[in-house]
Amino acid sequence: MTGTTLDDYTDRYARRVRGMTASEIRALFAVASRPEVVSLAGGAPYIAALPLDAVGEMLNKLAADQGATTLQYGIGQGTLELRERICEVMALSGIDVGCGASPEDVVVTVGGQQALDLIARLFLDPGDVVLAEGPTYVGALGVFQSAQAQVVHVPMDADGLIPEALELAIAEVARSGRRAKFLYTIPTFQNPAGVTLTEERRERVLDICERAGLLVVEDDPYGQLGFDCEAPAPLRARRRDGVFYLSTFSKTFAPGLRVGWILAPHAVRDKLVIASEAQILCPSAFAQAAVTTYLSTMPWRQQLKIYREVYRERRDALLDALADYMPAGTSWTEPGGGLFVWATLPDGLDAKAMMPRAIAARVAYVPGTGFYADGTGTGNMRLNFSFPPPERIREGVRRLATVMEQETAMREVFGTVGSPSRRRGQAGADVPGPDLA
Amino acid sequence: MTGTTLDDYTDRYARRVRGMTASEIRALFAVASRPEVVSLAGGAPYIAALPLDAVGEMLNKLAADQGATTLQYGIGQGTLELRERICEVMALSGIDVGCGASPEDVVVTVGGQQALDLIARLFLDPGDVVLAEGPTYVGALGVFQSAQAQVVHVPMDADGLIPEALELAIAEVARSGRRAKFLYTIPTFQNPAGVTLTEERRERVLDICERAGLLVVEDDPYGQLGFDCEAPAPLRARRRDGVFYLSTFSKTFAPGLRVGWILAPHAVRDKLVIASEAQILCPSAFAQAAVTTYLSTMPWRQQLKIYREVYRERRDALLDALADYMPAGTSWTEPGGGLFVWATLPDGLDAKAMMPRAIAARVAYVPGTGFYADGTGTGNMRLNFSFPPPERIREGVRRLATVMEQETAMREVFGTVGSPSRRRGQAGADVPGPDLA
Repeated sequence: MTGTTLDDYTDRYARRVRGMTASEIRALFAVASRPEVVSLAGGAPYIAALPLDAVGEMLNKLAADQGATTLQYGIGQGTLELRERICEVMALSGIDVGCGASPEDVVVTVGGQQALDLIARLFLDPGDVVLAEGPTYVGALGVFQSAQAQVVHVPMDADGLIPEALELAIAEVARSGRRAKFLYTIPTFQNPAGVTLTEERRERVLDICERAGLLVVEDDPYGQLGFDCEAPAPLRARRRDGVFYLSTFSKTFAPGLRVGWILAPHAVRDKLVIASEAQILCPSAFAQAAVTTYLSTMPWRQQLKIYREVYRERRDALLDALADYMPAGTSWTEPGGGLFVWATLPDGLDAKAMMPRAIAARVAYVPGTGFYADGTGTGNMRLNFSFPPPERIREGVRRLATVMEQETAMREVFGTVGSPSRRRGQAGADVPGPDLA
Repeated sequence: MTGTTLDDYTDRYARRVRGMTASEIRALFAVASRPEVVSLAGGAPYIAALPLDAVGEMLNKLAADQGATTLQYGIGQGTLELRERICEVMALSGIDVGCGASPEDVVVTVGGQQALDLIARLFLDPGDVVLAEGPTYVGALGVFQSAQAQVVHVPMDADGLIPEALELAIAEVARSGRRAKFLYTIPTFQNPAGVTLTEERRERVLDICERAGLLVVEDDPYGQLGFDCEAPAPLRARRRDGVFYLSTFSKTFAPGLRVGWILAPHAVRDKLVIASEAQILCPSAFAQAAVTTYLSTMPWRQQLKIYREVYRERRDALLDALADYMPAGTSWTEPGGGLFVWATLPDGLDAKAMMPRAIAARVAYVPGTGFYADGTGTGNMRLNFSFPPPERIREGVRRLATVMEQETAMREVFGTVGSPSRRRGQAGADVPGPDLA
């Protein structure tokens, strides 16, 4: 080729994705998936808890008896049958006809990720601001950065997003002459923090957003995975307008089918469908039929209960192991559901710098910086408890504690270990550090 | 909500999709799918030709025996196993190790549509120009318009894209100070035109693009569906550099699984994967396992032959019926493969204006304007022959001919019928009209 090179063409894109940690995380998962490594790094559900024989039999029939439909093209919005089942699932959490939820306004997506990407495509222009919890879902950061939007983090504590900090952030963005397009929030069993926005704060956060004319994008993949008690009703159950509700069957059934959804305000439903058609034409008819049939003919509520029990046992194993092994100065969240615990290391330890040594000690986690757009999170890590069995979790934490003690010892001998330029809480001067104790 | 409304937010997007015909076509398909209507409007493969029982059995085993993997998350690029099978499929068309094809550089996508969208996301900035055949795939127009790029059509004749017209278009774009990012082309059994770029022209088109430093995006969903003889080797088989090759299993296996791919130049492979991860996290592990197992254990070459035979018979039925029934002044292409015939109506007939009367007469097609970004195509229609059985095709053409004759008669009595402001060939003054005889 003469003239312009591929690199010229894609430099712009490279700039756009600079700072994305997706490929870093991919590389990490590749190492973490070695059998000798205890991986607390993933976010995968424990699929072996599914009745796989029955699921196989169900899929068999879907192809053999209904293949002319299930293996064919579908429509962009997703089948009416699935959208009706989705409304039944949402009704369990309180999002029902009473608050205007209707199959008409559901758009089926390729997992929760495409739901987020569609929202970004519809709303974000380069330079726009998105408010999001700090830390937040790494895949959302990827979407926002690829849309060239700027993420402003709002800190949490053990009760979730701090309303006063949200008000402050909105005011600061406005003062700087920029425009915040929406608040992206995972209010329930947050990824990665594991905390849940309290009942009372839900109302306050909604009021604040309403007053500011700020849309809310509520991401709720874990809401039905509560261990100790029911989670507070989603934001969308409390407000009919101004809230986009996103969820997925990846955590409650199976991520391998890639089926998620958006419940959108009626006014933009069509625009989301058109955007989705431009992106993927239509979601998989087979995957949709699989989820529809699973929800219609199989004991899915019972299966949810099984997932919850498996994960509660594993969360307990993780919390017990942390209490037993972690060196002084370490703190962590105590999630009432979901898949993740967020740990804060003793002062001076750098979770990313420590990774190679942790992998050498056969344990993996995700360093906290992956969950911030601004370099914060050096002293944090996300620990997953949904996939490894309890005894592996305990062994993983034991190995991790050993690595941390060695790091601390080395630090006392040689001074700072890791990347000294990035200390926790100093990364974004105008963004308060996370307080997740 | 106070402040900014949803409409304010999405007006920009509405502007972006103005001119898209996706929702028009959706509405059309809804009507066309009524059982009493003979639909020549679709683009669906004849799934009933698949061994559905055997496929069902295969899917059963994938879930029952390998569910812990196939129902789990996968990796963004797609599984190595599937990428290896894809290389075997491409090798059948001459894209092999000899021309640098490697599983390393394959990115699995959610059908061919996501492949196109990823290319657009990587390369297109608002205002950029894309060169594309006129007419071209409606879903590609949706992608380019959603990227706010401008499509400049290059005319075809019975031998496909006209090289001289391509040179002219490149020169005109350059003269106008704009930048053409790539040529989007479906060289084999083109959708919607049904024509195939000849051997000799393939080399000339590649030379022209190479000289101009223009990337080529080769979309090849139909290349293995040739009836009369083998299709000429794809462009990618002739050039190692500067060609993105896109294809899908939607036409050769089943669209309901949504599995397609890009063979990308090595330099941008990673950027495509990162963009795909931001969009969908990963393609469905189950759908990938289904295609992999289908290609590894089932007689897929034999199935391709069955598809070809079914479609050849239906193409013949369509061409025979057109010859028997069409009024004087109608012309059409004679495809050597694929799914579509492109018809040109007698002077003065408007295919879009005629649609309601055609539907009333229980026959459907896609009006030609859907395949142009510039309003051209008023006097054209796309006719599909892959889905309806031969006798239905014949009946559909008979109904269509009756409608056309009535239209012509009304026109003779009342003057112009339909939208007089849009006459064929006058829409885009600087874009030559299609010449598909």
